[in-house]
Amino acid sequence: MPRDVVTIDDLSEDEIQHIFSLADEILATQGTPGLPHRVRGRLALASEHVLATLFYEASTRTRLSFESAMLRLGGQYLSSADPKTTSTAKGETIADTVRVVENYADAIVMRHPCEGAVRVAAEYASIPVINAGDGGHEHPTQTLCDLYTLQREKGTLKDLNVMLWGDLKHGRTVHSLVYGLARFGARIIPVAGQGLGLPEHVVRRLHRDYDCTAVPPEEMGAVEQGEVPLDVVYLTPDKPHQRSLFTDLDGQTPTRLPANAFSSIDACYVTRLQRERIVGGGQPGDYTVIDKQFLEGKRYRDSKVLHPLPRVGELGYDMDNDERAVYFKQASYGVPVRMALIAALLELRPGLLSKSAPKRRHLEYHRQTLKCDNPLCVTMLETEQRYLKQKYLVINEEDHLLVRCVYCEHETAPACVGHESTRKYAPNDSPLDPHPDLVFFNSPAEAKAAGYSPSRE
Amino acid sequence: MPRDVVTIDDLSEDEIQHIFSLADEILATQGTPGLPHRVRGRLALASEHVLATLFYEASTRTRLSFESAMLRLGGQYLSSADPKTTSTAKGETIADTVRVVENYADAIVMRHPCEGAVRVAAEYASIPVINAGDGGHEHPTQTLCDLYTLQREKGTLKDLNVMLWGDLKHGRTVHSLVYGLARFGARIIPVAGQGLGLPEHVVRRLHRDYDCTAVPPEEMGAVEQGEVPLDVVYLTPDKPHQRSLFTDLDGQTPTRLPANAFSSIDACYVTRLQRERIVGGGQPGDYTVIDKQFLEGKRYRDSKVLHPLPRVGELGYDMDNDERAVYFKQASYGVPVRMALIAALLELRPGLLSKSAPKRRHLEYHRQTLKCDNPLCVTMLETEQRYLKQKYLVINEEDHLLVRCVYCEHETAPACVGHESTRKYAPNDSPLDPHPDLVFFNSPAEAKAAGYSPSRE
Amino acid sequence: MPRDVVTIDDLSEDEIQHIFSLADEILATQGTPGLPHRVRGRLALASEHVLATLFYEASTRTRLSFESAMLRLGGQYLSSADPKTTSTAKGETIADTVRVVENYADAIVMRHPCEGAVRVAAEYASIPVINAGDGGHEHPTQTLCDLYTLQREKGTLKDLNVMLWGDLKHGRTVHSLVYGLARFGARIIPVAGQGLGLPEHVVRRLHRDYDCTAVPPEEMGAVEQGEVPLDVVYLTPDKPHQRSLFTDLDGQTPTRLPANAFSSIDACYVTRLQRERIVGGGQPGDYTVIDKQFLEGKRYRDSKVLHPLPRVGELGYDMDNDERAVYFKQASYGVPVRMALIAALLELRPGLLSKSAPKRRHLEYHRQTLKCDNPLCVTMLETEQRYLKQKYLVINEEDHLLVRCVYCEHETAPACVGHESTRKYAPNDSPLDPHPDLVFFNSPAEAKAAGYSPSRE
Repeated sequence: MPRDVVTIDDLSEDEIQHIFSLADEILATQGTPGLPHRVRGRLALASEHVLATLFYEASTRTRLSFESAMLRLGGQYLSSADPKTTSTAKGETIADTVRVVENYADAIVMRHPCEGAVRVAAEYASIPVINAGDGGHEHPTQTLCDLYTLQREKGTLKDLNVMLWGDLKHGRTVHSLVYGLARFGARIIPVAGQGLGLPEHVVRRLHRDYDCTAVPPEEMGAVEQGEVPLDVVYLTPDKPHQRSLFTDLDGQTPTRLPANAFSSIDACYVTRLQRERIVGGGQPGDYTVIDKQFLEGKRYRDSKVLHPLPRVGELGYDMDNDERAVYFKQASYGVPVRMALIAALLELRPGLLSKSAPKRRHLEYHRQTLKCDNPLCVTMLETEQRYLKQKYLVINEEDHLLVRCVYCEHETAPACVGHESTRKYAPNDSPLDPHPDLVFFNSPAEAKAAGYSPSRE
Repeated sequence: MPRDVVTIDDLSEDEIQHIFSLADEILATQGTPGLPHRVRGRLALASEHVLATLFYEASTRTRLSFESAMLRLGGQYLSSADPKTTSTAKGETIADTVRVVENYADAIVMRHPCEGAVRVAAEYASIPVINAGDGGHEHPTQTLCDLYTLQREKGTLKDLNVMLWGDLKHGRTVHSLVYGLARFGARIIPVAGQGLGLPEHVVRRLHRDYDCTAVPPEEMGAVEQGEVPLDVVYLTPDKPHQRSLFTDLDGQTPTRLPANAFSSIDACYVTRLQRERIVGGGQPGDYTVIDKQFLEGKRYRDSKVLHPLPRVGELGYDMDNDERAVYFKQASYGVPVRMALIAALLELRPGLLSKSAPKRRHLEYHRQTLKCDNPLCVTMLETEQRYLKQKYLVINEEDHLLVRCVYCEHETAPACVGHESTRKYAPNDSPLDPHPDLVFFNSPAEAKAAGYSPSRE
Repeated sequence: MPRDVVTIDDLSEDEIQHIFSLADEILATQGTPGLPHRVRGRLALASEHVLATLFYEASTRTRLSFESAMLRLGGQYLSSADPKTTSTAKGETIADTVRVVENYADAIVMRHPCEGAVRVAAEYASIPVINAGDGGHEHPTQTLCDLYTLQREKGTLKDLNVMLWGDLKHGRTVHSLVYGLARFGARIIPVAGQGLGLPEHVVRRLHRDYDCTAVPPEEMGAVEQGEVPLDVVYLTPDKPHQRSLFTDLDGQTPTRLPANAFSSIDACYVTRLQRERIVGGGQPGDYTVIDKQFLEGKRYRDSKVLHPLPRVGELGYDMDNDERAVYFKQASYGVPVRMALIAALLELRPGLLSKSAPKRRHLEYHRQTLKCDNPLCVTMLETEQRYLKQKYLVINEEDHLLVRCVYCEHETAPACVGHESTRKYAPNDSPLDPHPDLVFFNSPAEAKAAGYSPSRE
């Protein structure tokens, strides 16, 4: 079974650091003297290998960065860049496409407009699959580049104060990034435009899966004269092993923040408004432009400014010559990081990755009693329904159970929970431990139609 | 003069077997231990060569398979994948395009929506040209892969019982395949959906050019309990040198079939409904899905299931784990077969191909008195008419003469035949040997307009 | 600072000849015996390098020729061929795009529909940028191929009689070519279709910047029997150092033409009607087709026939087998010339290019008081206006000053000229030397609004 990178969670913290080390090594040997962040020349690592880039959605930048990485590794690529010239136009399924393309190449990079589509590809391909963006879901290699840029420019990720600015609702790069920051013990300071905050499911997951704690605004230190006031929620990881600042080392209880915890913002990650992902019109208000004036305050003196690019107006051109601006460096790091990732997945360097992916902590649910209610989920595609089964993880919330679609990772709380052994069902509104006997239904009617009877009548 | 592969008839049986042998050799040396049907690594055969893929019609699969084959040979490719970005949009002719592109590459792979277009390219290019599909006409490398899959999976092509299933009317892969099967002595069992049978011209050509014989349904053996009854025509080659089962070795007369001739189907070649080729609406009925249930009968116990892919609904996903399913293997064979074909055409391995193409058995007709009546023929394109002349082969039918367009291979019977030496013409309704003095006309009026008078007045 | 080739003027005459010498050398070592104009095999010059081709406008031919050149040099390429799949669709600026792509490749080839766009790319990229066509502005590598073809087929460019035929108004290849011809001392004989003559600004520039002289029709020698009469203006360079035929070596005064100066046309450069560049309908008349009949006259006995291709109807197919036709050779020379150019820009061969571009002879004007009035200029794009400043060269005309946009090279005469030191302005209608104190305005009103007062009130 090959390793895949569909979400950032497909790599452990150790594996990510191994990839970053190889990227460092590549830059040390292949970086130009004048431009040590830029890879030049070609290695002989992948001279026997071919990478296929399958892009069902427009992206010159991401595609070219992967292809450049493959060339710089000494390899070759095959490219399918135009959504309209694919076999999909003839109704081919993702599963069939990758089982054909796996004969042409040694790894696949895929971008797809449907959320979860690349997970499907990874399930069916016998070669490694890398997600280059699946709708609004994930874009893990962008996250790797973001984390690598932060770590390389700041020396570490631990305890960094990272401000996230702009459209935090639609930007898939931001969702991946917050999970990544949480895992490495950085502090997350989301500052969203009007109506563009982190979605509830991301916040919920930060708390539940990454042990983050929200810090109330009154604890974030005084706003200085001339500064833009930040009316924000701080989310900070508090797991002991991450040695987060706000955690007692002997317990789970977060301490109060030191007064100067946020006196300096280490990095400001700016994102553009993802107009193309705003469904059904209705324009959220634009947000303040990040420029020299905005960053005048003492708090931002050492703030590295990152941006996944392209920018459209949220980041001033006057920043381009400011030494805090690292967004073009960030773009340049895309090549060594993707080189290292490809080298790891193709096992061109042994020992970077474990044999198998990090274990999922949750029980899998395979019964076909539910339907993912995310309209952008790959399971909604008629072509894929020919073969694709519904598949969920069962997640413990305080007083009910959630199911998370294995493909698009959308979470919902089914209306009813039954037990197969007893053929009884009840409303999903009480504490319950996930176990294999459980059966979920969207409604009492569906439970009854399946032959279940109410447990408390 | 370079060799080209525009139709499967551009290669002799011996040449095809040489190509298959090289494909075998490639798989033996480059196949992965666990996946011996899949090519890995890169040979150094074509390290000096460049392949240009010119696709005027969408096809990711075919294009990538050629480009992968070229990379695996150690070569490089140039790619023009988008019909709308070509010089054709500026009105360039095929002849001009290939005479420019021949300077950029060492061989050309072309797909074009017009029938015969790739023959035009081959006539004008001074480097080898491979047809990757020209409208509904031919797709010879798919046929090579199909034949190679059958031979590799079954050990031989001779006397194989090959069932062709689905849309036999519009599928160009099927037309190429039936000719190929006939040449290698396999038996063809067409089972078409409603209104989707083999076109008359294909059947006629099977009889005339490939010496096939139709076998009536009552001779095909009893239908077993539970089997889908096959109300079919069997076409079997009966040329002595092919040592077909149904031929007296000393004569041309087909014998009766042995009772058990079709008790076992060696392969089932499933095709999808070519909706995009059905002109002017009017939906032919869909056909039965090939799945585990269909293939339950004893007759299909050893039936390898092939499909040129993409499938849309005619082939069940439950077959994917059935060991009779070889359609993904078939796709994988595309790489070694195309590698071998490119190696042969570029003479990277000497001796695989003869200096010149197999001889055409028919007289060529070059006078400009006719016009191909296939509306999809390349000669109908206004741009090509600037330089392209009509060209036909003259073919002997029982009581009249046919002409076959050299480009699209469409056949028609001209209304009148004249003699240039006598300036007389007569209706084309009597036996007549093709000879260079003949002149064809679409109507008596055209014959008269050309200065010919009726011969029997 | 890397060298760029955005216009043909970015290369000095010496540098162009160095590039041609390397192209000669490539053909001598890599040309096939039978086809010495065609490059085969792969050099090891660029085995460490990657070329990115960014095409925002359709062009298979030009893109493939660059990619072929890079492969033949031993390098690799990245390709973005489809205008609709670029980040531009998300509103990215040219400056940002090239600052990202410079991390992926070692040089950029760009085609863009806006005039001056590639100059913007060159200004912002830290790697060499080559213009593969920017709207109706320039296409310098086509010009290099044209000049190389003339020189290689005729032995020299000096004193060649080169007839330019067809659409001289819209063809960017022709505008580049006339400047190139002028610089190398060839004589230019424009013969345009109705309403398709050289634009006034090109003629003006030929006189002013390239010291060409118009020769009246009555001095061009007698029209022979049967010849197409040429009612034309002859433009010939008359700078002494170019040793032009029509110049006294000791002075600037053109002499009368020798009677036989045009008795022989050395080359006939045919261009197609650029229908796609004719704005707002209104069809100029088509022009005479160049074919064997046209070229029957004695004057054309040795005329090499060139065409940048694609042709659509202005060049007869009967020429294809005429030995004067060199247009396919011309297409083939595109590969060695582009190989040599890339080798020069990437410094794969030292000493071909100077450290810096040829000096601009004109004063630069950087004040933001004007706006380029070319509607196709890159400075008109809303996205680019986020960062791009107006920039002009100031040019001395007899009784006024012109400004030439640094990007699209469009020239205009501003209505008013002021002096910053005196805050006075006057109409731009008297002789005046360019100097840094000058300020230009589009109107008296704008001058006044800027706080200037009329100088002669």
